[in-house]
Amino acid sequence: MSVTAARGFEAAGVAAGLKSTGKPDVAVVVNRGPRKAGAAVFTSNRAKANPILWSQTAIGDGVVEAVVLNSGGANCFTGSFGFQTTHQTAEKTAELLGVSAGDVLVCSTGLIGAGDEVFRAKVLAGTEQAIAELSPDGGAAAAEAIMTTDTRPKQAVAAGEGWTVGGMAKGAGMLAPGLATMLVVLTTDADLDAAALDAALRRATRTTFDRLDSDGCMSTNDQVTLLASGASGIQPDPDDFADRLTLVCADLSAQLQQDAEGASHDITIDVVGAVDEDDAVEVGRAVARNNLFKAAIFGNDPNWGRVLAAIGTTSAAFDPYDVDVSFNGVRVCTAGGPDRPREEVDLTPRATGILIDLKRGEHSARILTNDLTHDYVHENSAYSS
Amino acid sequence: MSVTAARGFEAAGVAAGLKSTGKPDVAVVVNRGPRKAGAAVFTSNRAKANPILWSQTAIGDGVVEAVVLNSGGANCFTGSFGFQTTHQTAEKTAELLGVSAGDVLVCSTGLIGAGDEVFRAKVLAGTEQAIAELSPDGGAAAAEAIMTTDTRPKQAVAAGEGWTVGGMAKGAGMLAPGLATMLVVLTTDADLDAAALDAALRRATRTTFDRLDSDGCMSTNDQVTLLASGASGIQPDPDDFADRLTLVCADLSAQLQQDAEGASHDITIDVVGAVDEDDAVEVGRAVARNNLFKAAIFGNDPNWGRVLAAIGTTSAAFDPYDVDVSFNGVRVCTAGGPDRPREEVDLTPRATGILIDLKRGEHSARILTNDLTHDYVHENSAYSS
Repeated sequence: MSVTAARGFEAAGVAAGLKSTGKPDVAVVVNRGPRKAGAAVFTSNRAKANPILWSQTAIGDGVVEAVVLNSGGANCFTGSFGFQTTHQTAEKTAELLGVSAGDVLVCSTGLIGAGDEVFRAKVLAGTEQAIAELSPDGGAAAAEAIMTTDTRPKQAVAAGEGWTVGGMAKGAGMLAPGLATMLVVLTTDADLDAAALDAALRRATRTTFDRLDSDGCMSTNDQVTLLASGASGIQPDPDDFADRLTLVCADLSAQLQQDAEGASHDITIDVVGAVDEDDAVEVGRAVARNNLFKAAIFGNDPNWGRVLAAIGTTSAAFDPYDVDVSFNGVRVCTAGGPDRPREEVDLTPRATGILIDLKRGEHSARILTNDLTHDYVHENSAYSS
Repeated sequence: MSVTAARGFEAAGVAAGLKSTGKPDVAVVVNRGPRKAGAAVFTSNRAKANPILWSQTAIGDGVVEAVVLNSGGANCFTGSFGFQTTHQTAEKTAELLGVSAGDVLVCSTGLIGAGDEVFRAKVLAGTEQAIAELSPDGGAAAAEAIMTTDTRPKQAVAAGEGWTVGGMAKGAGMLAPGLATMLVVLTTDADLDAAALDAALRRATRTTFDRLDSDGCMSTNDQVTLLASGASGIQPDPDDFADRLTLVCADLSAQLQQDAEGASHDITIDVVGAVDEDDAVEVGRAVARNNLFKAAIFGNDPNWGRVLAAIGTTSAAFDPYDVDVSFNGVRVCTAGGPDRPREEVDLTPRATGILIDLKRGEHSARILTNDLTHDYVHENSAYSS
């Protein structure tokens, strides 16, 4: 499963003492080839963490030998000392693997502003330990080591004709996309070059990770990396590869949504009847980010008025007196007015579906989000992260 | 005090049975002249309630004889029946006062989608009753009748040289501005025409109600109306009038913030060092709307990392490694890195000040917001509104 499902990869996850709980917190994924191609997408937050600044440069030549990931500290806004920590992590990895530091990506997650001398020493020691423990069966250990407030590891895999694509993800808060969101490593033994990987990755993330908007808060550290080893010797059809990759990304996105901090509902917002996809996304995101709507879902209240009020803040093409809104299949609002009684809607299941028909065109989009709960407030007020 | 502080105005507030609690829910404010000038600003939400659609037309000629306001139902997305309810309310008021219906503004607040036959009958009966009880001392009763989840009425007054400006406001949730926000009626006995009122009102609301962003949720019903009776016979200097009006609006804005649903902190975000005011507003608003930041304040956590992460989502001119952030006077972040220890910050007082220096220019803006609390989630999940 996970990042070692495809041939040509080894991984490990170890406890380096970054987490006060003593749980695993450093992971390494290594591409054993024969090909060493990679692509990545990064947070579009303009306040970027040191590992993002490093990895954005390192991915430039499309060659990736390894990815080092740590939880227990974001190494964001830690100054030049923090950037040197990332650099030294890549250097240490390169030295131990006998590769170039410029082909090692680094990812960090945890508290912003955390990344002192002690942090650096633990990350470097953990990296060394993880490399010593690299294994073709190390995917599960790696998936566990990148968890922060996640309650369970996230892994997914899809098989092609003679080739495989799999991956792992972490993320439970600050879940709102720029381009990418959260930390994700995807691997395949398909024989594809960096340009093909980049095209497939952007196609897959655009409708998966980029449409998951749990709490509207964009992270400083998000990175989704795709590595290809070529170990299968097979060059799949680009559409076929992108489709399987999208399946894996959609699976991981759903796992992230289902484990979002404090959430009691996994909300799927389908916007249809839009004049174009951008309008549909804008409307879905405006609803997903509306705290009154999110709190209403927590309270099992099919409050369509809050949906329309949120739509009204967008620039999308619509007339409020045309819009239909359904909650879990019950159309409570038709043409901007009340329809079925609220009492007919059952919002007790965790899975919640909102259907918004703008009645203006043929385009649609799906946004995944969560409700606003006491547990969300508790988790994000009682602990720094 | 309130809307009857200035000469030439009468008001009343009565219980018409719209609120299940039996509390007052219909208010009327009448301008006795000699001048009958008015100006108003409205929510920029594109999903607008029926009273907004009516009042936007009625304000066109700059003549306003009366404003009728009800709580206990927003009359929003109630179809043509709801629009007729608003129209009939204006007609009834006009008939009883012997004026034109086109010079009567209507405001409603409460649950979206609520506005059936029973609602209409109660609003009309309440309007008639309120007009029968009109009094030069009725300001306090009117201020009480427009309350929804407000825990206390909001009134303010400022005196000029021989003239007065005063007002009342309601609003505790869906507090985020388009142009205006919440329901506000302001009155003055200064002798000013509609154009002068409009200019002063836009100037005053731009830096007061429009900078109050409690929960990021824009209402469908917000309206701020300013009426002038001319009863003082004095034509104040336009700047002087706008300054006093701004004082009243700022006072009412602060009262709205201090009574926001479930809030435990009143947060003042001062953004300085911006290249222009728009940048400062964008940054302040992005921080004010960041749920992780808001939850951190609830938890008394001076989490400057979340402030920088929110700034990073804007298009403002800044470099994250230049930015300083202070919480209640303690600079916890200097040039995008840690400075004073978090332990030095005392966030136990309700009044909280965040100072963000972008270090790029000479412009600034102040945004008022609140924290994200268990009580906010409770109030907005347990009750429809």
